[in-house]
Amino acid sequence: MLSEETITIKPVGYVRTNAVGDEVKDKTRTSEIIINPELIPALDGITNYSHLYVLFWMHEIPEEKRMQLKVHPRGRTDLPLIGAFAVRTNLRPNPIGLTIVEFISVNENVLTVRGLDAFNNTPIIDIKPYDNWDRIEKIKVPMWWNKLEEEKKKNSELRKN
Amino acid sequence: MLSEETITIKPVGYVRTNAVGDEVKDKTRTSEIIINPELIPALDGITNYSHLYVLFWMHEIPEEKRMQLKVHPRGRTDLPLIGAFAVRTNLRPNPIGLTIVEFISVNENVLTVRGLDAFNNTPIIDIKPYDNWDRIEKIKVPMWWNKLEEEKKKNSELRKN
Repeated sequence: MLSEETITIKPVGYVRTNAVGDEVKDKTRTSEIIINPELIPALDGITNYSHLYVLFWMHEIPEEKRMQLKVHPRGRTDLPLIGAFAVRTNLRPNPIGLTIVEFISVNENVLTVRGLDAFNNTPIIDIKPYDNWDRIEKIKVPMWWNKLEEEKKKNSELRKN
Repeated sequence: MLSEETITIKPVGYVRTNAVGDEVKDKTRTSEIIINPELIPALDGITNYSHLYVLFWMHEIPEEKRMQLKVHPRGRTDLPLIGAFAVRTNLRPNPIGLTIVEFISVNENVLTVRGLDAFNNTPIIDIKPYDNWDRIEKIKVPMWWNKLEEEKKKNSELRKN
């Protein structure tokens, strides 16, 4: 069975940021992606997009946490236990991160983006453009997801007052 | 430098489809994803989403094609040569496919989805839910992208008449 084989991936670059801890979740921050110099031609034309998908390898997740398989969203025990494939947790069988970022600039092998929630030195495994086909209008998400969003909204309104 | 290290990924499952050739691009077709049985708990809660991201490894792309680095979108030489990170080609340094699919059903370790453009036996490396944060309203895409979309629309109108 093919799914027993292993796949070997060579990173295409790595993240450079001075954000530490929860600072990486701040969507207003910029990060740099240092692309392997031999891959510079692969960046050609990237300036014509406003948004990109960044795929990265969350190398700091230990093996045993990957096979936990179920988590409480954001570690909150008041929310249901959810399978790793049904939540955007980093505790997943293959700890691949997928984040939509805002393209800021590119200069030789340095790509600057906004909103990448990855730590310094995180290996980057792919970069893809975000296009109109990635915007799905009518979607369904779980109740806990909407609950978290409402709480976030309320908290940000409280902070404003 | 971290980006010189290699990453080892074990697939979480594989694709089962009878679509061949261009049939895999037909967004109305359903495919099955056969998940490794020990990962069944990771699917818990997936029924609460309408759409999922499927990440897969395009194992049939030969090494030399991966390092081509620039391609004409859809092989059309009338369109500009674009860097692999600026187009959703499968000829990329790490041939990872990323497709948004419609969730249809799940039965034990068999996940049925609509719109997965992957061939039979393709290794699946991750599944993630699509949520409201993945819908970016104001985006910019290249001129060639819009040109291709307009042509597609015209062709489908011609077929209708």
